[in-house]
Amino acid sequence: MSDTLPTVSRRGLMLVMSSPSGAGKTTISRALLERDSAIGMSVSATTRAPRPGEVDGKDYHFVSVDKFHEMVEKREFLEHARVFDNFYGTPRGPVDQILRSGRDVLFDIDWQGTQQMAQNARADLVSVFVLPPSVEELERRLRGRAQDSDEVVRKRMAKAGDEMSHWPEYDYIVVNVDLDKSIAAVQAILAAERLKRERQVGLPDFVTQLRGGE
Amino acid sequence: MSDTLPTVSRRGLMLVMSSPSGAGKTTISRALLERDSAIGMSVSATTRAPRPGEVDGKDYHFVSVDKFHEMVEKREFLEHARVFDNFYGTPRGPVDQILRSGRDVLFDIDWQGTQQMAQNARADLVSVFVLPPSVEELERRLRGRAQDSDEVVRKRMAKAGDEMSHWPEYDYIVVNVDLDKSIAAVQAILAAERLKRERQVGLPDFVTQLRGGE
Repeated sequence: MSDTLPTVSRRGLMLVMSSPSGAGKTTISRALLERDSAIGMSVSATTRAPRPGEVDGKDYHFVSVDKFHEMVEKREFLEHARVFDNFYGTPRGPVDQILRSGRDVLFDIDWQGTQQMAQNARADLVSVFVLPPSVEELERRLRGRAQDSDEVVRKRMAKAGDEMSHWPEYDYIVVNVDLDKSIAAVQAILAAERLKRERQVGLPDFVTQLRGGE
Repeated sequence: MSDTLPTVSRRGLMLVMSSPSGAGKTTISRALLERDSAIGMSVSATTRAPRPGEVDGKDYHFVSVDKFHEMVEKREFLEHARVFDNFYGTPRGPVDQILRSGRDVLFDIDWQGTQQMAQNARADLVSVFVLPPSVEELERRLRGRAQDSDEVVRKRMAKAGDEMSHWPEYDYIVVNVDLDKSIAAVQAILAAERLKRERQVGLPDFVTQLRGGE
């Protein structure tokens, strides 16, 4: 029966995930992408050097500082920001492509990026802030990256504090106590947002059809 | 570890489910109540006679017309309405009790009730409208109640058409193609709404604690 049922068409949404470094946002994002084929990742451009194992075009678009500034000039970014000594930005083209294909786009960006995105596309934006369960756990996770020096960890803890002060600017807050539960939480947010009336753009036609049969 | 973690306290919400008769709303509501102990049902008061098997205080509070009008006078209803020749209303007392205990309340009411509730408690209200997958399926379900006459079925189809015209007043729309998927959809809505920033009233204290550890 379900083959012949009408499908209500919907508009794609932009799911923004932010958190202090070490709160688990990237792990949650990756799990979401693996489990849900209807959402695609926005790959950021950055001027920083690739870390071991990072793939250009998958983890980041690695670009030169000159190229980055050229993209800013040409307004090719939905948002861009400087973090420490590097630049990061979200190219507009690939996002438009995913939204047009009826899928959602996931953004792994900081509060500055989220504010810029909100200016450009508020109605399509769903923002989630991930908090660590405790400050001890946050520090433990930040120290867990063996290649980082104490100086880098200190910088990250300071940045984490600043970043966390921006939680009131987000729609949803997930305290990442348990990774599986946090993944399920973001999946629920995504499922719910897709059911919002204003995103199901095919509803007026669908209900007209339902009522026309009276 | 999770035993010692702080829990972010939250404010209860009122989940309103409406649909044309026969769309599956009542089945979805019951499944939700069985699977989620953090949500309780709002039991309506009504002046109609109990149907076979209905239990007073569980399915409805069955009250006399005089008693109903007395409750209206004393402002004991969050919403009340006349449907055909009977009165239905939501008593305020039990709802306050559930919300105070930190749980959510489910309301199985029509669009008139939803409008009244929205006037009284917009911030705490989450409204879901359930649509049938097709007009043929709707009629089949309405005819499935063997005890109802053709006249009653015709009245219900007409009422279903009126009711469906109110879908644009709801936050979320669930087209009930598959019952299990519809139940999961409403569970996702509930899970997501509980994660909304403004419902997690304990967050300011929680973040202060997180940042204080710097």
